[in-house]
Order: sequence, then C-alpha cells, then structure tokens
Amino acid sequence: MTMIEYRPEPGEFAWTFGGAAPVRNVKPGDVISLWTEDCFAGKVRTERDLASQVCEFPFLNPQTGPFYVDGAKPGDTLAVHFVSIEPAAPVGAATTLPFFGALTSDAYTATLQDPLPELVWIYELDNAARTVTYRAKSSDLTLRLPMDPMHGTVGVAPASFEARSALVPDSHGGNLDTPEMRAGVTAYFGVNVEGALFSLGDGHARQGEGEACGTGVEVAMNTVLIVDLIPGVATPWPRLESDTHLMSIGAARPLENAYRVAQVDMIGWLSELYGIDRMDAYQIVAQAALTPVAQVCNPIYTVTSKIAKSLLPNASAYRGSHARLREQARTAT
Amino acid sequence: MTMIEYRPEPGEFAWTFGGAAPVRNVKPGDVISLWTEDCFAGKVRTERDLASQVCEFPFLNPQTGPFYVDGAKPGDTLAVHFVSIEPAAPVGAATTLPFFGALTSDAYTATLQDPLPELVWIYELDNAARTVTYRAKSSDLTLRLPMDPMHGTVGVAPASFEARSALVPDSHGGNLDTPEMRAGVTAYFGVNVEGALFSLGDGHARQGEGEACGTGVEVAMNTVLIVDLIPGVATPWPRLESDTHLMSIGAARPLENAYRVAQVDMIGWLSELYGIDRMDAYQIVAQAALTPVAQVCNPIYTVTSKIAKSLLPNASAYRGSHARLREQARTAT
Amino acid sequence: MTMIEYRPEPGEFAWTFGGAAPVRNVKPGDVISLWTEDCFAGKVRTERDLASQVCEFPFLNPQTGPFYVDGAKPGDTLAVHFVSIEPAAPVGAATTLPFFGALTSDAYTATLQDPLPELVWIYELDNAARTVTYRAKSSDLTLRLPMDPMHGTVGVAPASFEARSALVPDSHGGNLDTPEMRAGVTAYFGVNVEGALFSLGDGHARQGEGEACGTGVEVAMNTVLIVDLIPGVATPWPRLESDTHLMSIGAARPLENAYRVAQVDMIGWLSELYGIDRMDAYQIVAQAALTPVAQVCNPIYTVTSKIAKSLLPNASAYRGSHARLREQARTAT
Amino acid sequence: MTMIEYRPEPGEFAWTFGGAAPVRNVKPGDVISLWTEDCFAGKVRTERDLASQVCEFPFLNPQTGPFYVDGAKPGDTLAVHFVSIEPAAPVGAATTLPFFGALTSDAYTATLQDPLPELVWIYELDNAARTVTYRAKSSDLTLRLPMDPMHGTVGVAPASFEARSALVPDSHGGNLDTPEMRAGVTAYFGVNVEGALFSLGDGHARQGEGEACGTGVEVAMNTVLIVDLIPGVATPWPRLESDTHLMSIGAARPLENAYRVAQVDMIGWLSELYGIDRMDAYQIVAQAALTPVAQVCNPIYTVTSKIAKSLLPNASAYRGSHARLREQARTAT
Repeated sequence: MTMIEYRPEPGEFAWTFGGAAPVRNVKPGDVISLWTEDCFAGKVRTERDLASQVCEFPFLNPQTGPFYVDGAKPGDTLAVHFVSIEPAAPVGAATTLPFFGALTSDAYTATLQDPLPELVWIYELDNAARTVTYRAKSSDLTLRLPMDPMHGTVGVAPASFEARSALVPDSHGGNLDTPEMRAGVTAYFGVNVEGALFSLGDGHARQGEGEACGTGVEVAMNTVLIVDLIPGVATPWPRLESDTHLMSIGAARPLENAYRVAQVDMIGWLSELYGIDRMDAYQIVAQAALTPVAQVCNPIYTVTSKIAKSLLPNASAYRGSHARLREQARTAT
Repeated sequence: MTMIEYRPEPGEFAWTFGGAAPVRNVKPGDVISLWTEDCFAGKVRTERDLASQVCEFPFLNPQTGPFYVDGAKPGDTLAVHFVSIEPAAPVGAATTLPFFGALTSDAYTATLQDPLPELVWIYELDNAARTVTYRAKSSDLTLRLPMDPMHGTVGVAPASFEARSALVPDSHGGNLDTPEMRAGVTAYFGVNVEGALFSLGDGHARQGEGEACGTGVEVAMNTVLIVDLIPGVATPWPRLESDTHLMSIGAARPLENAYRVAQVDMIGWLSELYGIDRMDAYQIVAQAALTPVAQVCNPIYTVTSKIAKSLLPNASAYRGSHARLREQARTAT
Repeated sequence: MTMIEYRPEPGEFAWTFGGAAPVRNVKPGDVISLWTEDCFAGKVRTERDLASQVCEFPFLNPQTGPFYVDGAKPGDTLAVHFVSIEPAAPVGAATTLPFFGALTSDAYTATLQDPLPELVWIYELDNAARTVTYRAKSSDLTLRLPMDPMHGTVGVAPASFEARSALVPDSHGGNLDTPEMRAGVTAYFGVNVEGALFSLGDGHARQGEGEACGTGVEVAMNTVLIVDLIPGVATPWPRLESDTHLMSIGAARPLENAYRVAQVDMIGWLSELYGIDRMDAYQIVAQAALTPVAQVCNPIYTVTSKIAKSLLPNASAYRGSHARLREQARTAT
Repeated sequence: MTMIEYRPEPGEFAWTFGGAAPVRNVKPGDVISLWTEDCFAGKVRTERDLASQVCEFPFLNPQTGPFYVDGAKPGDTLAVHFVSIEPAAPVGAATTLPFFGALTSDAYTATLQDPLPELVWIYELDNAARTVTYRAKSSDLTLRLPMDPMHGTVGVAPASFEARSALVPDSHGGNLDTPEMRAGVTAYFGVNVEGALFSLGDGHARQGEGEACGTGVEVAMNTVLIVDLIPGVATPWPRLESDTHLMSIGAARPLENAYRVAQVDMIGWLSELYGIDRMDAYQIVAQAALTPVAQVCNPIYTVTSKIAKSLLPNASAYRGSHARLREQARTAT
C-alpha cells in the first residue's frame, strides 16, 4: 500500500472529464491524500465577491486530477472509497448566480424574465462541532446546521472520445452533486478509457437535496481516498455503497428520466445480486427504494435510488470491494 | 367534540374530487373514524386477480367521502390530522398494470413497445409486528419490510368548477401518493368550495418513493382523523406537518416542476413563518431541505419538500393547529 | 337538415368541459350558426385593460355550449366540421399575463423571479383584406399579418366523471390551441358521455405555433359548423381532417410526451386506414409527418402530428365523414 | 475564391465536435466540395444489415472535417452556406434501433420493456425525379415521397474545452437533425475556438419532423458549401437563414426547453434586427413564428423557431452574409 499526497499547483487543475492529461499514476490499493479547490476556484471569500464578477467562465469547478489508475481498462469498474472529506477553510460560500439554479430560469429553461438578485451567503464552518452556520440577510435569524461534507464532482473520463465540462454529470459521474458522496462511501464508476482518469472536486460542507440555489456550502476539501479496481465488471451508471445502503445515480433531463435511470439501474443491480428476475427486483424497488433528488440545477439532473441493506439479505457487491476498502481505511488511518 | 363513525356502503364511494355529493356533514374538531376501500375496489385478493380483468375503469381508487365541513369557505385552510391509519385486511396487493407505472411507457410517455407482464404480489401484513412480507416469484427470496401505513389519496374539491379523477393529484390534493401521509401527520389543504368536501382513500401498508410499479402495498384501512379549520388562511399547495418536519407537496410534470412547486411553496412558508425575505428562505431550503420523490406514475407527478423542525427556530404554523390536534388525538383515543 | 342559430346570453357560458348542463339539443347533420365570446370574456378592449385587473378568475375562456348531440354514446366519435370562423369584432387583443405563457415561469415551472410586464397589444382586424395588424410599442414597426381564424377551444365532456377547466386540453379536446382548427377542417372527438356535450370558444384571428405569450389574437367569433356522428368508432385523442391533411393532436407534459401521443395516435390511424402493421406506419410517420407545436402555455401542452394526404393513397377516414361534411357545407351555405 | 475538393479517407473521419485535429485549412469565401459518409459508416446497405450487428459503437455519425477556418476566433460567427446537397448513393436506409428513437424507451427514458423490433427499410433514391420510395414490409404499399436532402449534423467545436459526440446536438450545432438544413440555406454558428473547427455529416435524403424512428433516410452526400466569417458578432445558438425564413434552433431536454431556447433566441435576433424591445419581439414571435420539432431521439432534443421574411420588413442579418453567399453560389456553380 502506497500513500500518495497530492496538492495541485494553481495551473494544474482539470476543467473537464476526459481530454486532460493525468497528474499522477496510481495503483489499485493506493491511498491518496489530496486537496480540492472549491467550485469558485477560491475566488468567493466574502459577501462582496460575486461569482459573475470574480470568476472567469469556464474556469469553474476545478478538478483535482485526473489520476491514471494502472491497469484500468474499458469494461472494468473503478472503486473510489472516501476515507475522509474535511473542509479545508474556516468558511464556506453559497451563492445565487444569474440564470443558474433550480428556482430560476436558466440557459435551457429559457424565459424572458430578469435574473434573481446575485447574493453570497458566508457560512462559518466548525469542523470540531460539525456545524455550518447560516445567517439571514434580511433578519437576525441564525441557523446552525449539521456539517455533512461531500464532493459534488467525482468521475472518470467518458466514453465515445468525449471530454465533458466539470459542470455536467452523466454516466461517467462528474457533477453529480449528491449529498450521499460522503466519507465512508465507496463510489463505483464504469471505466471507459485506459487508466480510467478519475478526478474530483466541488466540495460542499453540506447541501440540501436538489441544490436548489445552484450551490452547496462550497469549500476546499482535504480528502483521503482509496482506489480499487474490479476488473471485467461493467458499471453502466455511477453507484455508491455505504455500510447501510446501496445506491444508483441516474443523470438525465427531465428529472423523471434521472429517476428512471437510477431505478432501472438499481433493479439490474438487485437482480444480479440476488439472482431474481427483473420484475421481482422491480417490485422490491417499488416498495423499498428511497429516491432523493440530488440536483436540479446542472445541465443534466440527478436522482439517487437508495435501498437500505438492512431490508435485504447479505450480499457482496463488486466482490466485496466496499467491505475490503472500509477495512483498509480503518487500518490505514 | 363529536366522534363520527362512517363506513361507506358499496354504492357510496366517490370517484372524483369535486362533483360528488357529501356523505356526511362534520364540524371542525370532529373526530372521524372511517374505513377506506383499497384502490382496486377490493377486487385484487390473490395473484390470479389481474386488475386489468377484475377492475372496471374508471371505478378505481374509491374515495370515502366527501365530507362537508361546516363553515369551510374558499380562502380557508382545512387541516386533517391523522390519528391512526391501520390496515383492515390480512394481506395487501401490489401489481404491475399494462402501461402504468414509472418504469414503463404509459398513456402520456407513449411508445410502441409491448407492455410489461401484468403481475400481482400478495404481501402478508402483520399489524402487531408492523411488517409486510414480500415473496419473490422467481426465487424463494422473502423480505420482511417495515409496515408504514399511509393514504395515497387525500384532498378537497378543486377550484374552477372542476371535478378531478381520484387517480390524479394537483393543488387540491388527490392522488398525492406520498409515504409522508402517515399517522401523526396533519395535512393542510386550501379550501376551494363551500364545505371543502374532503375525501380520502388508497391506503398503502407501505410504499417506496416514486411508487415505481404504479402501486404501493394496497389495502383497505381503518383510519381515525380529526378535522380542523383555519379560517382566512390560504394554502396554495398541500402541506404536511409532523412533530419533526414541515412539508410542502408539489404536483406537476415534468418531475422538476413538481420539485420547483414544492420548494417555492416551502420558501413562501418559511418566509412567512420567520419573517425573512424569499431569497433568505431560498438559501435555507437550498442547504437544508430534503426532497424525496413521492410518485412518478400518476398523470401528474409529486415531490415533497421537507425540512426538519430541529434545524429551525420554534414557530407556530397555522396558528398551532398541528400541536392542538396532536394533543386532541392524545386525549381522544 | 336543420339550421340552428345560437348566441349565448351573458349568464349562459360554460367554464368547463363536463359538469355543465346542455344549452341545446342537436342532431347529426344539423348546421349550427353560433357566436363565441373571446377568452377574456370581452373585457380586454384597449391597451389599458389588463386581464389581471379586469378579468375574474376562473371566468376565463367562456364556452359556447355544451350542445347535447342526440344519439351520441360513449364509444362513438363526434365529428365537428367548421364551415366558417369569422372574427366578430374590429379588433383582437393579445396580452402577456403575469406568470402565464411559454417564455416565463408559471404556476408549474415555478421560479422565484418577478413576472414579465403585463402588456396588451391591440390588433386591427380586416375581414375583407384578411389581415391582422400588429403595432410595436417601442417603435413604429407595423406588421400586417395574414388573418387565419381558428378556435383555441373545442371539445366534449371528459371521461371518468371529470369536469375540466376550459383552460386545459386533454384527450377530450378542450384548450388545444392549435392553429389547425380552422374553417374547412373536421375535428373528431371520442364521445365519453351520452350526448357528447361539445362546446367551443377561444377564437383567435391568428396564432403563432406554441402560443408563446399565452394568447393568440383573441376575438369573438361568428362560427358555422356541422355536427356528425360516427357510431361505434372510438377516437382516443382529438383528430383533425382537412382537404389536404390528416392530423392527430397529443396533449401532455413534458412536450415530448405530447409529441409521442400525437405520433403514436397517427401511427394507429395510418395502420388502420392502410392495413399495414404499426412498424410500417411508424416508418411512414418518421419520414413524412410534420409535427408543429400547438401550445406550450396551458397546464397541459399540445403537439400536432400532420401528414399530407398527397403523400398517401386515397383512403376514407371515419366512413368518409369529412368529404360528406365538406359537401354539405358547400350546399348549405 | 478557392474551390477545395475533399473526400475523407476511411481513417480520416471525426467522431466528435471538438477534440479532433483539422483535416484542411480553409479561408472565408472558400467553396468546399466534399463528400460525407452516411451515419452508419456505410455499413447498412440491405434490409439484412442490422446496425446493432454491423456497426461498432461509438463509430456512428462519421464527420467530414473538421475544417480550420483561418482567422476565426471565439466571439465571431461562422457562416456555412449550402450550395448543394445531393445523395451519393442509389438507395438510402432508415432503421429502428434497439432503445433508440422517439417512440421507444431509450437510455434516458429508461423502462423495463423489451425493445421494438430492429428493422431496416431501404428507400430507392431518384435524384432526377427528386423522389425517395418507401415500401411497406407488411403489405404492398409503396409511397413516392419528395426528396429533400439535408445534413443532420453540422457544427463547430464546443466551448469549455469540451469534445462532444457527433450523436449529440447543443449550442455548438452537432446532431441538430432539422430538415431545414437543406441546400440554399446559410447556417450560422458561434465560434468557440480558434479556427472554429467545423465539420458535417449525417445526410438524409428526407426526414419527418422529430426523426421519430431515430433515423432519416440515411445516405452519403456530395455537398458543396461556402464558408464565411462574421468577425466580432456572437451567435449563442445555431441559426439558419434561407431566402424565405429566419430560423433559430434550440437544443435541450425536455422538449419545451428546446422550444423556449429557440424562441428566446429568435426574440433576441428580431429585437436586434428591428430595434424593438424584447416584449415587442416576443409578441411578434407569439403570433407569427412557426416551431416545427426537429428531433426527439438524440440525447438532447431540438426545435426550430422559424419566421417568414415576407411577414417582416427587409433587414440584413449578419451584415448581409446570406445574400452575398447566395450570390456567390450562383456565380460559383
């Protein structure tokens, strides 16, 4: 086992999945300790830093990586286990942006209306107390919300010779923006190109479901992860496994399609894990799956299908990768 | 306080919200103990009872009611507090139906493909152990899932002189199919016509989010509820309040619109409860709201916006109706 | 053949399809000469008449009718042939309305943005020259556009005991808002209740595809139509036949579903007319159908599938109803 | 003026917009005579050639190009004028494909249903008579449809360092699949990278609106085009200009968003051309624009907004580029 430390230099970020040269080679089993910049490329620090003024499109959502995973080939599955995800700054920023977010017209849901006001909320982060503090602008209302750090963006190079903006999610992962991408979770991605070329970024100290305003509580992250490879096993859509849940993530518009993709993927997964036919798995999903909305603000929307392991018989997904990584995380740290 | 017992006679069900004559007059504060038939009108009892053969369209989703609430006027809010919802049969039925459900083409998502097989799963219900038992058809897999009884359909007569099929949800409530409509919850509906004319039905012993196959575990219910009226307070979309959460339900297609409606409604609610402007409430919702999908199978889809009271300062929604009804429920039963 | 003249008294309009008592009995073959009020109930006459101030919700889209067609039974098809549709006022009005229209957020595509300005454009109508004249507000730009009168709303009572607002289209017809509903066209509707109960209104002197601002050039109409009945022939979605085209109208959200419904219906129609299987009809539609958007502003959207008769062999749809009505129109007028 | 002849060698096709090296440098004013392969890479020639067997994903929609346009810079507009588009083979092929097309579930509108049958229809093309001949499989029905050759795919390299599959349309153009992309038309694209890097392919001898089955009548093409550059003029979404119409193309899901994007773009265009404010332009579009659906089968859908020049005062879009190119075409050929 190797511990790799990596902190990207200013010019070293990737802005796409696919089409960027790898920054490091890693091997299955390697532990990577890395730092990710926030989605604003570090430029929004106070309420006066309006992203539309201080950020330069398309230099948003800087990605740490990509990492070339030795031996990864199309048709394999890459497992990325998050050992820890910790805010690397004392405050996080959440903003509205002109024509971006779930509750405004945007580039696709195009209307003739004026944009919403562009505002920045600065949240104080307390890593010890595990809180993020919201302060209203129009009153003295203050809320201490639980810290729940996550990565909005994790993924691999896409198929079909594509390079996709880090602002977009799809079957390769990318800007999935699900709060389920937290420490303790193993994320599975189908490998599309040699070396998989995975990267990550867009840390949130917490995020509501749907990421309604277009951002979470955005913050740089110190993250430790372990990489694993499951050769010869394909993964059509991003999947997550925690100690308590199996999850599939669908990415599509309209939102019902993201739901459909996630649920159909979960049905395929359960069908295979338990040796039942798809109609039987459909019935389980219909009565037992949770389907939180992940985000409704990116160019493609995401929904998670989520089923509690406690409701299901024991099964070993991906040849026990999650349990093995969980154990390695315990001993490695 | 009056206790009203009501069990509809066979010919007494309503099939629409609006357009049906009231079966009883009730007063705010009345406790109603009633029985609801299952969505199949009781005709699916075994795996051989295919709804497409034994049910007669449009005689699906029979409603118990409507109840005329004395004094209710357009512009008021009707509160319906669920004291208890208990399965009234030893088994529940879940089915697939030709061209109905989230993971099949349907009357609107029209394709040229053949329908999925029509199948019935019979679940054994154990009210004491609070379990519903699933049995796979293609293997001996058996799952004991937690019982979590709810009403798929609750609502009032719609506005605009409309009568809507009990299979459809909209701003008047109706076939909302959210698992959040469980005992202990108070549902708020805007009153559109004199007497409000609320009715309910479509009990589920449990249901996954999205109601993917088109049904929950369908079963007749013995339900006790208390009616309250909040005069002069309008409610644009159905809202729920439990001891732990505030919830708004949006109904629309595509699914992102149901999400938007629910979140915008929640923003309006929080804005009013806490005296903050809408942008501040938007930010709270963006970082703190959960948005489980309710159903993706009816003619109009539903999403719930849900925020934990524990994250918010104390506030008294609807003049404290929920707390008062909760207390009344405790003493009444 | 009977000629029926009918001009509704002020209190005589219907505001729904279904749920309204018939104003007249008519027989298949009857010619009906009637007047329809405009969608604003006649209250928008100048640029200062803002609908949000002068109109009273839900008293919009007044319907002339319903007419009880003797002998019409569920399972039959009602044919309504438009002999003439002529503006009955010297000007028409088009408006924007707060949160209504295709290019603004609305009640379902809910956002937090401010509404667009509410404006009225008054068009001069010249029935002789067949023009409607647009005048810009921000410059002296004047456009003389071709007059192309149509009815936005035509339909029958819906199934399932429903009464639907005249603002909504669905399989029963209603607020379809397709510019194809013009003189010379025969509209076919499936009959859902005894007497069919058809009504119509919402005349437009012309309308762009999609009815982007939420209205056409709205005007009262003098309309002559002939009613026919095709017993024992079901019509699942509204269909139109002109001398040159066969058309099916789909109503659904999102808009791709309206497209799908229209195209699948057209495939069924061609398959039956020409005795070909559905895959062969699918191929014809794929290479030969036009699919103009009808409207993207009502609670349910509409798309028309349209195929030129000149591309197809001769066939006699609905037992030759259109040709017969066309001939009757010629001799009757 | 230079005449460039270019016929790609087998290994020389591009499979993406962006991310491919240019095959030729061209200058504004150059006439390019080129050949494009069909979308099946030439592998579907008979009814027995099933694409799912003979084609190799992702080697579909081979693009001729990209061409590097000397002097083109981000912020400029590239004009591509089609002088002629002529089928280069005696037959064209149209197919159904498993889980691809508008009237089947697909990778995004995911359902559990079986795919439709995979079928190939071979159309005889008669360039002289301008017909394409359809033959039903289930009967002897034969239809001679008008030939109307077009390119499904035309575009430039996208912004944001992306490379997009040639199967996908977006603001850079790509797989727009509108039948309006025919000879005599000038297409305008915003330039995102130096040299613009435009390419084209996917010829259709004709196509219905929506491309319902997932293909047009696919055929290799001999195409002559002229390139022009309008420096310093941005074009947010693809636009077309013919002798008779101005057109904007929106690409988005759901389909109403493609409609919205196209209409909002047209409003901006008219507003600028005629010096009127956006609300006045909105009103023109609302009453005068046509909005045919382009395609409902690709990962992103497309709708065209189309307005007749005859309804508008004379105006010179893009500094008269279309008229100039039209004149050059007349003299060049």
